Amino acid sequence: MKRTALKLGDVVSELRALRLKSLENRQRRDRPPKLPSRKVLVSIADGLRAVLFPNRLGMPDLTNESVDYYVGHTLDVTLRELMVQVRRELRFAGDADATGNSERERAAGITQAFAQRLPRIRSLLESDIQAAYEGDPAARSVDEVLVCYPGITAITYYRLAHDLHRLGAPLIARMISEIAHSSTGIEIHPGAQIGGFFFIDHGTGVVIGETAVIGEHVRLYQAVTLGAKRFPVDEHGALVKGNLRHPIVEDDVVIYAGATILGRITIGRGSTIGGNVWLTRSVPPGSVISQAQTRNEVFDGGAGI
Amino acid sequence: MKRTALKLGDVVSELRALRLKSLENRQRRDRPPKLPSRKVLVSIADGLRAVLFPNRLGMPDLTNESVDYYVGHTLDVTLRELMVQVRRELRFAGDADATGNSERERAAGITQAFAQRLPRIRSLLESDIQAAYEGDPAARSVDEVLVCYPGITAITYYRLAHDLHRLGAPLIARMISEIAHSSTGIEIHPGAQIGGFFFIDHGTGVVIGETAVIGEHVRLYQAVTLGAKRFPVDEHGALVKGNLRHPIVEDDVVIYAGATILGRITIGRGSTIGGNVWLTRSVPPGSVISQAQTRNEVFDGGAGI
Amino acid sequence: MKRTALKLGDVVSELRALRLKSLENRQRRDRPPKLPSRKVLVSIADGLRAVLFPNRLGMPDLTNESVDYYVGHTLDVTLRELMVQVRRELRFAGDADATGNSERERAAGITQAFAQRLPRIRSLLESDIQAAYEGDPAARSVDEVLVCYPGITAITYYRLAHDLHRLGAPLIARMISEIAHSSTGIEIHPGAQIGGFFFIDHGTGVVIGETAVIGEHVRLYQAVTLGAKRFPVDEHGALVKGNLRHPIVEDDVVIYAGATILGRITIGRGSTIGGNVWLTRSVPPGSVISQAQTRNEVFDGGAGI
Amino acid sequence: MKRTALKLGDVVSELRALRLKSLENRQRRDRPPKLPSRKVLVSIADGLRAVLFPNRLGMPDLTNESVDYYVGHTLDVTLRELMVQVRRELRFAGDADATGNSERERAAGITQAFAQRLPRIRSLLESDIQAAYEGDPAARSVDEVLVCYPGITAITYYRLAHDLHRLGAPLIARMISEIAHSSTGIEIHPGAQIGGFFFIDHGTGVVIGETAVIGEHVRLYQAVTLGAKRFPVDEHGALVKGNLRHPIVEDDVVIYAGATILGRITIGRGSTIGGNVWLTRSVPPGSVISQAQTRNEVFDGGAGI
Amino acid sequence: MKRTALKLGDVVSELRALRLKSLENRQRRDRPPKLPSRKVLVSIADGLRAVLFPNRLGMPDLTNESVDYYVGHTLDVTLRELMVQVRRELRFAGDADATGNSERERAAGITQAFAQRLPRIRSLLESDIQAAYEGDPAARSVDEVLVCYPGITAITYYRLAHDLHRLGAPLIARMISEIAHSSTGIEIHPGAQIGGFFFIDHGTGVVIGETAVIGEHVRLYQAVTLGAKRFPVDEHGALVKGNLRHPIVEDDVVIYAGATILGRITIGRGSTIGGNVWLTRSVPPGSVISQAQTRNEVFDGGAGI
Amino acid sequence: MKRTALKLGDVVSELRALRLKSLENRQRRDRPPKLPSRKVLVSIADGLRAVLFPNRLGMPDLTNESVDYYVGHTLDVTLRELMVQVRRELRFAGDADATGNSERERAAGITQAFAQRLPRIRSLLESDIQAAYEGDPAARSVDEVLVCYPGITAITYYRLAHDLHRLGAPLIARMISEIAHSSTGIEIHPGAQIGGFFFIDHGTGVVIGETAVIGEHVRLYQAVTLGAKRFPVDEHGALVKGNLRHPIVEDDVVIYAGATILGRITIGRGSTIGGNVWLTRSVPPGSVISQAQTRNEVFDGGAGI
Repeated sequence: MKRTALKLGDVVSELRALRLKSLENRQRRDRPPKLPSRKVLVSIADGLRAVLFPNRLGMPDLTNESVDYYVGHTLDVTLRELMVQVRRELRFAGDADATGNSERERAAGITQAFAQRLPRIRSLLESDIQAAYEGDPAARSVDEVLVCYPGITAITYYRLAHDLHRLGAPLIARMISEIAHSSTGIEIHPGAQIGGFFFIDHGTGVVIGETAVIGEHVRLYQAVTLGAKRFPVDEHGALVKGNLRHPIVEDDVVIYAGATILGRITIGRGSTIGGNVWLTRSVPPGSVISQAQTRNEVFDGGAGI
Repeated sequence: MKRTALKLGDVVSELRALRLKSLENRQRRDRPPKLPSRKVLVSIADGLRAVLFPNRLGMPDLTNESVDYYVGHTLDVTLRELMVQVRRELRFAGDADATGNSERERAAGITQAFAQRLPRIRSLLESDIQAAYEGDPAARSVDEVLVCYPGITAITYYRLAHDLHRLGAPLIARMISEIAHSSTGIEIHPGAQIGGFFFIDHGTGVVIGETAVIGEHVRLYQAVTLGAKRFPVDEHGALVKGNLRHPIVEDDVVIYAGATILGRITIGRGSTIGGNVWLTRSVPPGSVISQAQTRNEVFDGGAGI
Repeated sequence: MKRTALKLGDVVSELRALRLKSLENRQRRDRPPKLPSRKVLVSIADGLRAVLFPNRLGMPDLTNESVDYYVGHTLDVTLRELMVQVRRELRFAGDADATGNSERERAAGITQAFAQRLPRIRSLLESDIQAAYEGDPAARSVDEVLVCYPGITAITYYRLAHDLHRLGAPLIARMISEIAHSSTGIEIHPGAQIGGFFFIDHGTGVVIGETAVIGEHVRLYQAVTLGAKRFPVDEHGALVKGNLRHPIVEDDVVIYAGATILGRITIGRGSTIGGNVWLTRSVPPGSVISQAQTRNEVFDGGAGI
Repeated sequence: MKRTALKLGDVVSELRALRLKSLENRQRRDRPPKLPSRKVLVSIADGLRAVLFPNRLGMPDLTNESVDYYVGHTLDVTLRELMVQVRRELRFAGDADATGNSERERAAGITQAFAQRLPRIRSLLESDIQAAYEGDPAARSVDEVLVCYPGITAITYYRLAHDLHRLGAPLIARMISEIAHSSTGIEIHPGAQIGGFFFIDHGTGVVIGETAVIGEHVRLYQAVTLGAKRFPVDEHGALVKGNLRHPIVEDDVVIYAGATILGRITIGRGSTIGGNVWLTRSVPPGSVISQAQTRNEVFDGGAGI
Repeated sequence: MKRTALKLGDVVSELRALRLKSLENRQRRDRPPKLPSRKVLVSIADGLRAVLFPNRLGMPDLTNESVDYYVGHTLDVTLRELMVQVRRELRFAGDADATGNSERERAAGITQAFAQRLPRIRSLLESDIQAAYEGDPAARSVDEVLVCYPGITAITYYRLAHDLHRLGAPLIARMISEIAHSSTGIEIHPGAQIGGFFFIDHGTGVVIGETAVIGEHVRLYQAVTLGAKRFPVDEHGALVKGNLRHPIVEDDVVIYAGATILGRITIGRGSTIGGNVWLTRSVPPGSVISQAQTRNEVFDGGAGI
Repeated sequence: MKRTALKLGDVVSELRALRLKSLENRQRRDRPPKLPSRKVLVSIADGLRAVLFPNRLGMPDLTNESVDYYVGHTLDVTLRELMVQVRRELRFAGDADATGNSERERAAGITQAFAQRLPRIRSLLESDIQAAYEGDPAARSVDEVLVCYPGITAITYYRLAHDLHRLGAPLIARMISEIAHSSTGIEIHPGAQIGGFFFIDHGTGVVIGETAVIGEHVRLYQAVTLGAKRFPVDEHGALVKGNLRHPIVEDDVVIYAGATILGRITIGRGSTIGGNVWLTRSVPPGSVISQAQTRNEVFDGGAGI
């Protein structure tokens, strides 16, 4: 049985030529530094979730005398892996640091500060779970909510990513947020600010932009977009990056499935936005916005399940 | 090279305090019993799919003389794992059993009854595959449908979960249904009732609620919602759980992409619901519902591909 | 502790009877040949992505002297696995080959031709990454785009699948495209034709049909459908397969979130299609299509983030 | 390509018949209970060694603040696994317990008692390592001794196994001792009693019997046997089990390679037994025993390396 | 941080030159065919042992209704892997086959014949286990013997390897026998012929040669050699391969530790060979051979434990 | 079901106290640096063997066009892992370096130098394989020798370890040599010097000491010891380390099973040492040494098989 020649040599050298040309275009002939590893971040995120909810998302057999050993050990391993990844991001970003600290020291500092935030993240997540349990007639227990609801999964990843974003690891934060997006269909940019008691039901297709601000006790359904209306460009036609371009959603707002809310507008406290509504201007507190009456029938309330 | 201190001790004790407080709030100072494991349920669902379609979803090298050994062995391992998980759910639920049977006995009973349902599930799935093959111009063979179509994947998980739900393992059922949601973007509550020859094309964003009832030969496209219109509350303002709140879809109905159908309404046999339609009242058999004429053009038919 | 009898024998024989009946119905009593394995295709796709971007998606520690060894070795292993899978598909399809070549020879030919396409695929992907970087104000570097953006992931799988589809392995192509669908929520049929500098932002819910044609510099947002309007049937009522039924999108078009574009229509060069628009007729170059004015407010531009 | 029939059915039923017959012969028609699992015991032994020497045999990256979490967590997981295996052994042994405790309670008791012995085992092992370091001119550090020397590996397993043997888990003890035998070529029966500062150099082929008693500061070389001279039988010709039949080796004895010492004899304190010596009677303290002068040359001292 | 260049290119090309020269020396410029894989043979041997003793060496949770499914399925998977390896050996050997059968057909034939031998192998192993149990005062149960005794492990591998050797797969047989050698220190050439009720105690260092013949109820202790006395050479000085050069040991013989028995001699039925004896001539039935009286004391019987 | 308390806290703190005391005894209160990892060295040794014999010990499917990619890639990965381990050893040893190079630089230097030695190691191993093939009547092919013979395995590990020992990584060398010892029962100290065409048959129990010197074309059988006769001590009674204390074995010597050769003596070229011989003085070239005539019969030649 003869083996087939695959002309590997040709493909290998063509690909090499393309890589070199691509580096040249970007004036970077030297090997680019390592990026954080998605695979390692998946395991870091699992470790952090286990630390936060050791009995539910960690190890099922923990006892009163063993749970702290488990939490401490998992924390140690996970933070140490995280520190390595943060260091990779800092090197990759390559920007000078005013303090003169090395990347190693800065990575340690970010990781330490992040560790101190974990109890607060746990508290926020408890409020989110509470909100989900109270907001869904199909929920039978808070534990069910924690292990079953994709909305809770996405919010957990978001809350971890958000603190990493704030502390100076925006690339890692983004990668963690994409890990959640891939498994839940819910995309929350780690830059967004979200208060406690936040609940996303069903969730597939939800998109929350980088500069969105969300108050407490807000509830979203699937396919809701909190997006930007337009992208300003500078005098050279290049996108202006980083400006405030996503909505502010105040406390106690409910937004039903498929609603699209665009631009730096404010949804006033206690408002209800109906399913499939398209909204690009602010609405005052207590508003009830539904689709125009040209629909084939009157709007009756919501699209939750 | 000095090692960085991470102040693990502080984080560990703060997290412990939060856990204790959280248990206290729920009047449960003793360690809560174990939940079913998502990871094990993933492997149980894989095992069940392999049992149903051994050559296609199990082992590719099975022969006429070996296939039954494979099916029998996989069934044994999978059901035994399932029995352990069901027992965990029963313990977790903790409700008394009128029969006085132990959790072990009840878990065995549920697992046995479930095993007896597998041939019927296989029959239903064959009808679903047939419907997909006949309904999609891009489908080349029924085997392609089985291994490629996310709609078929989601329906398979649903049919398994539905019988577990009915037999008394609703939490496991829900977890299995979320496993499918995560990989397909299709969410079908295991409580929903769905007849044979069911086909979901593309599927991302489909949501089917707990009390929905779907007849035979029904076809859905991506982003269709069969949801609840409103959530009644009791005199204390708490959600009333479990009432019938999702649509009834009769036989031979087609619902195109993005349609939102809410409330305990009935879509009459043979109806067609157009793409993006928002529907909250019943329609008689044979209806053709499209978006209102205020759209930028006349509706032409469907949103399938 | 008594072990529970599970009546495995009954279930095994009922399932066997169902399998036999099912084969009979399709006049195929003999064991059907093996299908390509989804699990192996996952690893093949990983291998191909590593070959295309060895430092970013392959191994982080490659040096100038080692990178070609890595690429060559990974290519060898991956193509060899691919050849086995292609051979399975050819056997499964079972259609005669005009050239009289064996399945082994044909599989080798397809794999060799595919290998030669890899440099061109890498070039196209570089253009896509460039487009994403330039089109998203939140993007900080092209490397971030490559490792974080689900749109880039989906396009990478699509470009690999498309060449396999063209070269005669449509089932494998479809399976690879479903792997991407499962992880990104973006479904692109491998038969679609898509030019360079293509960018999908957010992406969950995007569906692009088999005969769609997309030019260069096209940008799509989440939940955009490029679908078929209706499915013609032949005189026996069976679907006509393979006819041209999806849109043509010319160069420099932007389509905002939730837009539904159906049928073999043409979106002229440079057009902008607003969010949630429902479109079933061609529009000339330079068109700006928004939702009708019956919406609760004037359309302002886009639904990107 | 035709598949070969393997007549599996015939082999399966012949094997079944043999199993049934074999059970019948032993008057045990019902399924025999589970045995401890060798694979799990391998991982338990690894866990225990990691607990004893966390930096060297556990995890290399432990810090002052994390090492106790690691030790506590590893201990918890390992002891819990051990408890399950001990319970299996007790069930298998099936003998009644005077205390009336259940197998679960007795397994917990044995495991707890064993846990309390670990510090003492660590102390003994430190003395053994010290003895190895001082006794071998090739040893460069005590750490090298711990990670490289098969003698130390074998003694570690022995010291763990010996306490399990004493506490009532002789089968598990024996299995652990065979794990060490397989990897070092050194067989020490867990029933043997061995004092501190014990050193076996090279070790392949060493056999130490069940009732051997070894003092402190004893040194053995490869292929030394401390065996039984004869096996007494009872009036029915059956072996008498459990009588004292292996040597007593007092403190400060050295036994060179290949020496064979048989029967319940005593090697007096401070004696030296030459290489390949065959010894079946007691020798007083301070003896120097070498092979008879019929050898091709005078004995000069030792066979160590 | 600069990466170190390793001059991989030089090493790679020097190694290539050496490989080519080495092939040239052996007149085989074309790539030599694949050998059987040691790693796969390890798993095949595990599978076969599981088939023979499913409850003890296979899966601990088998029930009466599931054990045959397990055995049948494991047999199927294992034999199919074996068939692939046998085919590799036949191709590697490359010798013509008088029957004109293809390597595939011959491999299938060997595998089928081997499968039919498994019940007989199981029967022989039961006799060996019985002999071990009756011959060792430390053995507490036949199950302990099966899972703990390296002698039983070695004999099990030998009995499997011996039938493969006889049926025409001597290389695979040898590799399996080396797998046992590595884990037990006992080397039994698969060509040796060994009757039932065979027991090797302790075993490290035992060597049994290719043409040895051993009767029933024979017992060996550690470090016994049944070897060849001299290797005849032909007129060109090359070794004559395959002639009968190892001992014949008749029924009911006991050979104590360290005895060396060389050449095609016969140890008569019922003989006892003392520890460390060096024997190169036949002895009649009933002989008791001990070391000469020049030893430092009288021989008393045995070196067993 | 109540969980058993294991009093983990007590054990953890007792073990901590013991660790601290043990460090104190050795005046090393700070955490000792990491040791090389045995597990990683196992994989490094596998990688190096694959590089040396890619078709036989690496990947079976390599073609002419792919083999160098495989060798280059495996070399890169393996050497890079080795460099990390060497750096650990250098740090652990902690001795100053005359050149003033950092541990990183020295580790790189050692690894580079080692890489350049690989072709020479391959050449020596080919000579060893040739010697085994020619010296064993049971050997059917050189490939069988390479994959089956424990002697060849042990020599391969030795030759790799010896060069690492020479280049300044004696601890890693020792650990690699113990990996071979564990799997073959053959212990060769990496400091020993061994010429080409070296063959060890069977091998269990062979021990070759640190300062042994072995010429070309030497053949050993199982259980041969090349050891030290006595260990000189200095004026304080401490062992003198590193002096020449093991035998010199000149070219073309054969040493049969069980022979014990001790001290810095010379076995002259072409000598034959009989089985079980005990030798502590030099013998001239061409000697034939057998056991004294007090044996129960005349020595006839050898103990090979």
